[in-house]
Amino acid sequence: MSLLIAVTWETQPWMERFKRHLPGREIAVLGEDFDRNAIRYVATWGPKPGSLSGLPNLEAIFSLGAGVDHLMSYPGLPDVPIVRVSQDDLTHRMSEYMVLHCLMYLRDQRRYDEDQKARRWNPDRSPPIAGDVRVGIMGFGVLGQDSARKLKMMGFDVAGWSRTAKSVERFEVYAGEKGLAPFLNRTDILISLVPLTPETRGILNRSLFEKLARDGKLGGPVLINAGRGKLQVEVDILSCLDDGTLKAATLDVFETEPLPEDSPLWTHPRVTITPHNSAVSEPEATARYIAEQIRRHEAGKPFENLVDRTRGY
Amino acid sequence: MSLLIAVTWETQPWMERFKRHLPGREIAVLGEDFDRNAIRYVATWGPKPGSLSGLPNLEAIFSLGAGVDHLMSYPGLPDVPIVRVSQDDLTHRMSEYMVLHCLMYLRDQRRYDEDQKARRWNPDRSPPIAGDVRVGIMGFGVLGQDSARKLKMMGFDVAGWSRTAKSVERFEVYAGEKGLAPFLNRTDILISLVPLTPETRGILNRSLFEKLARDGKLGGPVLINAGRGKLQVEVDILSCLDDGTLKAATLDVFETEPLPEDSPLWTHPRVTITPHNSAVSEPEATARYIAEQIRRHEAGKPFENLVDRTRGY
Repeated sequence: MSLLIAVTWETQPWMERFKRHLPGREIAVLGEDFDRNAIRYVATWGPKPGSLSGLPNLEAIFSLGAGVDHLMSYPGLPDVPIVRVSQDDLTHRMSEYMVLHCLMYLRDQRRYDEDQKARRWNPDRSPPIAGDVRVGIMGFGVLGQDSARKLKMMGFDVAGWSRTAKSVERFEVYAGEKGLAPFLNRTDILISLVPLTPETRGILNRSLFEKLARDGKLGGPVLINAGRGKLQVEVDILSCLDDGTLKAATLDVFETEPLPEDSPLWTHPRVTITPHNSAVSEPEATARYIAEQIRRHEAGKPFENLVDRTRGY
Repeated sequence: MSLLIAVTWETQPWMERFKRHLPGREIAVLGEDFDRNAIRYVATWGPKPGSLSGLPNLEAIFSLGAGVDHLMSYPGLPDVPIVRVSQDDLTHRMSEYMVLHCLMYLRDQRRYDEDQKARRWNPDRSPPIAGDVRVGIMGFGVLGQDSARKLKMMGFDVAGWSRTAKSVERFEVYAGEKGLAPFLNRTDILISLVPLTPETRGILNRSLFEKLARDGKLGGPVLINAGRGKLQVEVDILSCLDDGTLKAATLDVFETEPLPEDSPLWTHPRVTITPHNSAVSEPEATARYIAEQIRRHEAGKPFENLVDRTRGY
């Protein structure tokens, strides 16, 4: 009847949270002694190779974050249901991030910052209104759609792109390979929230950036990536910023994390960097969510937010 | 049948706009020759003393911006209806400004900016969620309410304060002198959108800041003033920032504008400055709005957004 915690982080806080939300259950921690036959569930983030084997009674694996690429690339992943965490808080935080950074571009906040530094009073600008700026959200799942609704409410002209055809009320959703170019052609601010899979690795590259709209009101297209770092090709981002293919970029994720100190991204004047915390899952809410899924499962109900292994998310 | 343009700005663009929106009318410009008896309407911003006298057939005065303090303080203001401009674009721009700056505080963007400058990767923060941050909007008219709705949609806990009692669906609105202290006591981010009147001049001072919430999640209360500069006492803002009564301030307006080069506000590390353009009225939309009001009036309908001279806005 046990849950195994397999994380690379400090385990004690997770132990306490799960004990609170699953009272009376045995909770084990990888690295300590425990009965491998008793483990029915694993809650994990970035498990070390081998750590998920030899669990003959395993019924499900819970990812402790929204993405599951850390599991999909795990060699010998047990053949049990994989459950993604979906949390309103995480969704809302991601939307805060997207609205904040889209507004910073719309309102040219970085120019005002520079003006302030130079004690320069320069009100004579004709900023576009939000309705003149086309935001394109790549990855139109729970996170993408919440951001879309909020950006639309702020007045932005929002569309989505999804791997498979999708009908979402009030939004135009481009789909698949065929929909990608027309989606990019109408996009001034590209938001990347696509899951990392073998097909999407490196998708944010020069050839994609070159398809973004050239007739927008921001003086060039902008990239905001808060999905996964391995989606992006950083040498391409830098060269596209330098030759004007991209006007600016806001990056929360990077090919290598933490971002190496010698990365030229740190000091690029048109790059905004945040340290992979655009939408941190709130540990308390995560533990509550997993406990709830375990209770559903044991009551004979299906898991929610099941991962589809063939598509990889 | 003429409209008189009385502005301190360049007049030609206004002339063209009004000609377009009021075809067939005579449009006059202050400073040039015109028949004073023919003037029925004045469109003005910051009229010079005397410029509005000697117009015996004047029927209404239109303010070319949202505020009318420039008219209320005009000596010998003709006793005709004063019409404020109300424009969706202006309203939306103001809300963009408020949502942007509230999110910058919520998400601690300035700290990330500093981290980036120092090439510091520091994801370990527990930012509050929007629902934990109480925004208080002083001045709960058209602008205040639109900002309120959008901030609420982003998750913030929003309340308003108004000079007179007001019922606005879904919002708690504190009113008058008596409601001010309880309103401030529950406010982490104070947004000022109050009109400038003799009663509100200098209202944003130390004694008011000291009543703001001390138990909030932002590490201290924050001021955002995009109303009028004369609402604020800048020496108090600076001393309150320095002794911790205020955590930070975002100011779009100033006691003296342009903000003098030697103002210590420019370089204060916790002050964000924008040059009185949080919500610029879009000239095209303003001219259209005024033309529409003139047509309403001439069709026997009342003007919209009439100024109440006794309250001063």
